[in-house]
Amino acid sequence: MSKDKIKVSIVGVTGYAGGELLRLLLAHQAVKIRHITAAKSFIGQEVTASYPYLQGLCSLKIEKTDIDIVVEDSDLIFLAMPAGQGIEPAAKAVAKGKKIIDISTDFRFADTAVYEQWYGVQHDHPELAASAVYGLPELYRHQVAKAEIVANPGCFPTASLLALYPLFKAGLAKDNSVIIDAKSGVSGAGRTPTANNIYAQVNENIKPYNVAIHRHTPEIEQILTRISGQEQLINFTPHLTPMTRSILSTVYADLKVPSSAAKLIDLYRQTYADEYFVKVHDEGVWPQSKWTWGSNFCHIGVTYDPRTQRAVACAAIDNLVKGAAGQAVQNMNILFGLPENQGLELVPVFP
Amino acid sequence: MSKDKIKVSIVGVTGYAGGELLRLLLAHQAVKIRHITAAKSFIGQEVTASYPYLQGLCSLKIEKTDIDIVVEDSDLIFLAMPAGQGIEPAAKAVAKGKKIIDISTDFRFADTAVYEQWYGVQHDHPELAASAVYGLPELYRHQVAKAEIVANPGCFPTASLLALYPLFKAGLAKDNSVIIDAKSGVSGAGRTPTANNIYAQVNENIKPYNVAIHRHTPEIEQILTRISGQEQLINFTPHLTPMTRSILSTVYADLKVPSSAAKLIDLYRQTYADEYFVKVHDEGVWPQSKWTWGSNFCHIGVTYDPRTQRAVACAAIDNLVKGAAGQAVQNMNILFGLPENQGLELVPVFP
Amino acid sequence: MSKDKIKVSIVGVTGYAGGELLRLLLAHQAVKIRHITAAKSFIGQEVTASYPYLQGLCSLKIEKTDIDIVVEDSDLIFLAMPAGQGIEPAAKAVAKGKKIIDISTDFRFADTAVYEQWYGVQHDHPELAASAVYGLPELYRHQVAKAEIVANPGCFPTASLLALYPLFKAGLAKDNSVIIDAKSGVSGAGRTPTANNIYAQVNENIKPYNVAIHRHTPEIEQILTRISGQEQLINFTPHLTPMTRSILSTVYADLKVPSSAAKLIDLYRQTYADEYFVKVHDEGVWPQSKWTWGSNFCHIGVTYDPRTQRAVACAAIDNLVKGAAGQAVQNMNILFGLPENQGLELVPVFP
Amino acid sequence: MSKDKIKVSIVGVTGYAGGELLRLLLAHQAVKIRHITAAKSFIGQEVTASYPYLQGLCSLKIEKTDIDIVVEDSDLIFLAMPAGQGIEPAAKAVAKGKKIIDISTDFRFADTAVYEQWYGVQHDHPELAASAVYGLPELYRHQVAKAEIVANPGCFPTASLLALYPLFKAGLAKDNSVIIDAKSGVSGAGRTPTANNIYAQVNENIKPYNVAIHRHTPEIEQILTRISGQEQLINFTPHLTPMTRSILSTVYADLKVPSSAAKLIDLYRQTYADEYFVKVHDEGVWPQSKWTWGSNFCHIGVTYDPRTQRAVACAAIDNLVKGAAGQAVQNMNILFGLPENQGLELVPVFP
Repeated sequence: MSKDKIKVSIVGVTGYAGGELLRLLLAHQAVKIRHITAAKSFIGQEVTASYPYLQGLCSLKIEKTDIDIVVEDSDLIFLAMPAGQGIEPAAKAVAKGKKIIDISTDFRFADTAVYEQWYGVQHDHPELAASAVYGLPELYRHQVAKAEIVANPGCFPTASLLALYPLFKAGLAKDNSVIIDAKSGVSGAGRTPTANNIYAQVNENIKPYNVAIHRHTPEIEQILTRISGQEQLINFTPHLTPMTRSILSTVYADLKVPSSAAKLIDLYRQTYADEYFVKVHDEGVWPQSKWTWGSNFCHIGVTYDPRTQRAVACAAIDNLVKGAAGQAVQNMNILFGLPENQGLELVPVFP
Repeated sequence: MSKDKIKVSIVGVTGYAGGELLRLLLAHQAVKIRHITAAKSFIGQEVTASYPYLQGLCSLKIEKTDIDIVVEDSDLIFLAMPAGQGIEPAAKAVAKGKKIIDISTDFRFADTAVYEQWYGVQHDHPELAASAVYGLPELYRHQVAKAEIVANPGCFPTASLLALYPLFKAGLAKDNSVIIDAKSGVSGAGRTPTANNIYAQVNENIKPYNVAIHRHTPEIEQILTRISGQEQLINFTPHLTPMTRSILSTVYADLKVPSSAAKLIDLYRQTYADEYFVKVHDEGVWPQSKWTWGSNFCHIGVTYDPRTQRAVACAAIDNLVKGAAGQAVQNMNILFGLPENQGLELVPVFP
Repeated sequence: MSKDKIKVSIVGVTGYAGGELLRLLLAHQAVKIRHITAAKSFIGQEVTASYPYLQGLCSLKIEKTDIDIVVEDSDLIFLAMPAGQGIEPAAKAVAKGKKIIDISTDFRFADTAVYEQWYGVQHDHPELAASAVYGLPELYRHQVAKAEIVANPGCFPTASLLALYPLFKAGLAKDNSVIIDAKSGVSGAGRTPTANNIYAQVNENIKPYNVAIHRHTPEIEQILTRISGQEQLINFTPHLTPMTRSILSTVYADLKVPSSAAKLIDLYRQTYADEYFVKVHDEGVWPQSKWTWGSNFCHIGVTYDPRTQRAVACAAIDNLVKGAAGQAVQNMNILFGLPENQGLELVPVFP
Repeated sequence: MSKDKIKVSIVGVTGYAGGELLRLLLAHQAVKIRHITAAKSFIGQEVTASYPYLQGLCSLKIEKTDIDIVVEDSDLIFLAMPAGQGIEPAAKAVAKGKKIIDISTDFRFADTAVYEQWYGVQHDHPELAASAVYGLPELYRHQVAKAEIVANPGCFPTASLLALYPLFKAGLAKDNSVIIDAKSGVSGAGRTPTANNIYAQVNENIKPYNVAIHRHTPEIEQILTRISGQEQLINFTPHLTPMTRSILSTVYADLKVPSSAAKLIDLYRQTYADEYFVKVHDEGVWPQSKWTWGSNFCHIGVTYDPRTQRAVACAAIDNLVKGAAGQAVQNMNILFGLPENQGLELVPVFP
């Protein structure tokens, strides 16, 4: 019955993450969408003006963001805003007892000093940042269930942390030895046209960017530090890859003791034994980023190099699903006591 | 309840159309998959050996095709076989009162002489070909409902006929004036590796093939002839386009009387007013092939050129869904009295 | 010796056509580049700021366009400007006895009324438009040799006219029967980032645009009319294809008399017997757009459909070379009495 | 004069590296091609049957490999053969005083035990392997000049070693600390169609392969060990990237002493000060793989991460040019005393 459905709104629907959230929520049986809003573009238009392929599937209009109305009408608000712009709306929602899932970056750092340093944005609600839960359900499911604000993880951190978590949980990785070399489809860079994301510059082309200075670095370090109890500094190198969607994150860690591919695969399978969305593959089977296309799954392969005593693992996700909108729905399901995979049992589109 | 579900089997599951059918049927609530079979590859293996991303989503094994067992255990058999190889299996199924949806080509021609001429294959059951129903539901829904064998249309014919149907139904198109220039993603050419479908030959490359001799030509002509009551000869030029999925078919027809873009759009909208899967767009909005990605929708744009007195229309479909597996599921829904869009309410994956 | 080299300048170097012209001229032994200018972007910067891969290959600076200086210092000026902005510069150059090759659109129409109607731009020098030569060397080589202003053809017209010319020259094509269905890589839409040319919108996607209203329509009609001596109206449908470069133009024409593939191939080969840049392929061999990558060649295939009495031909070119910069260099070679293929003997990059 | 030209032959011309070599040699003024041979495919055919876009540019026929005739007629033989198959031909050539440039793998390892272990092939001429010169001109130019057999480096080793060489030459890198994460276009996997290189599996997809066991690992280790005088073990992870050409190799090394981005860039620029083909970019400018398209250049960026005391460098090359055929031509130029960049002054095709 409609009156029992979760009333949700999307603030910032015209970006790729917002659009993907709309795709997933339209198909979610337990949800009623109340408002979809944008800062500027398309305000007042049918959503089909921005997404013509939704003709007949969605009759919503894109509204100007009036946060008071949004909070009033919603049980849960998804925020997909530029850095800094979700802080005040989140505070208003919490004040009214409404839930927030922030797909952006404003609540990912418990220590707002780190946030302010890397993002160059002032944070006026450090108490909310401190109490927000980092919404990586495979690590923090129980905290998510009780959260007021869920900080949805970044796309690179999601893939990279799922690839590294078993090693750190088991205490196998040497401190500060982690190197993450990640490859992302270009939708991760957003929908705004720039000289860097036009087709003729992207196709048949791969390039690194923000080497040693990317903002996802401290986000990953924060969680590895939490798991290990030791400060962890890493190298993280993102690459813009000629793909629309998906991320492949290849991670390297020096191990404290010799191991083997079989032992590591066992470890990973035990760690993720109860995880619907994480698939650990057999020795020699390496994930392909496109296996995840349109789905919330994370595929992982891992091996051990006895010559160098290093573990090498790869994790693949759809950056817009498990790396953004799908994980947000997963967090919503946890927050509202629904089956964690409701609305997310999507078989990947392949090829 | 499982015992009330439709028991289906897929004969030829390891091609792209078969794999897509598996994706759709796994998510279809009214269906139980009994057998998935292949001629050679992967027999005896878990389906995840061929489709690793299905780990946890499908625990079926790929079997050798034993048509007697398949027919015995199934209410409906989907055939996805090379030309000529579905005829005998279909005959066996019909003899046992089971339904056939043939994704291949064996029953698309009421006149098997045409089939034999264009396909170079002998057809031993012309009586079944004559009684089979051409499974384009937007044209032949009522016949499909009572069919024993549904001949699922080709991908190019589906897009092209949906683009042309309103003109011919209204008697507007001049005889023999139709030109169809179609562009297909490379999955339409199948999953077998060849010098023509490897990445380095396909990417950044578009090429025509089988110009003036492609086998979908008589398939389209047969239906246009049926609608118009006059023999229709056409030109059909397919192009291999650097895309994995989807087809865009651009069609041209000389009109008998002057018209206008607005009039043609009205005509198309009236013709498809009750069609869930067909979307006719506003003047100046032209379909993009990727709008259909992973979905069963067909997007159409149409205009009139007063200078040349021609209609130009474009139709976009996902070649593996509306052009193959999705349309097969649509036909199944009709055959078994289910809502026509059950299991097909897929919001396209975009971008 | 440097003092004998042709002094050339490029006005509008930062677009794709201008950049390609730079690539070709840097390798041309008979040319000295004097000025490369831009309207806004990059003025004052090393060219390597815009094209980093030219480090060590080009030490030119991008200048603000001062047309008087450019004209003074150059024997030949290549104009690559937005519509309307090349008219005055061309007039100045002609007044000083300097040559112009206009890669843009300002001098393609002998009748400026047509230009003004389709481009919405006023033309203040109709006398120059009337005397300018349409720079398709395979048709107008001798006129080019004596021209003051060469109007470099559009990319679509180049491919389409080379595909149609033999039919019209031989008087075989029925009036007003031509349909052109063309597919272009996205570099044809320019270097400015827009919602239509970003990677995530273009890859795995093909779409028509400006159907029945594209500005290259009257350009093609003007030349077909000239060749045939009869007014020719055509249908021209361009498609944005997921490729960076190249165009494939598929053309259809009703023939006045029955023919055959062999006869048409003979006709095409005779017509282009002396053309270095045009290659006519054997029956059943159809050009692939990527065969042209980085080169000035045009590959053509043609056949005859006896069922419909139509000719179907396909021409492939690199839109930035034979469709723009390469043809401009070809015209330069003709203008200055050099071998027509000097600097253009580029073997295509494949794959 | 033709009689003074270097007489060369290509043994194995139908693969991508062989085809690229043909493209480069056709444009090389100092070379006359005597024989182009293949093992099986296309023997006896015009080269245009395999490469239709060479119509008018190359009238050679593909011959069966008769190594005695090839050696007799050539000053220099390029070998592009499967592993193990170039050993005997090379021995024959050397016996006759002819030069060999082996694009394959048979002479890359001075210690044939390492070769036999990683390649599973017996090497009957260890004395030739010991005297062969590793043809990375930026490191071994003087030895190449006097070589009988030049072992053309692998594509991944070329990019990776150029990215690491300055660090090891300066003694800055810690032993065994190197991690190489490399991304290659699919042409690196050869021209033979397989389930792994068809378009529908490659496009929009990135995947690692042969993790920790790729054969280029010992090739890189051999050279790093030579430079440093210490045994070096590395991790090397190749990724199949949705591109036709080019490689981007991202390398990580722990440094023995603190440094800075500026210092490392200085070091790299000094190291490569006299190298025509190596370009070191400014701080914050990172190479894009496509900058190299069709050219023999290697673009490098480097930085230092003070938080982890690691150097991170990226090198981009065209895998078929600097990673194979272009480097072979560069080696030929050195062997025969020609300007090192003759026939290789190709401006990259961009976009």
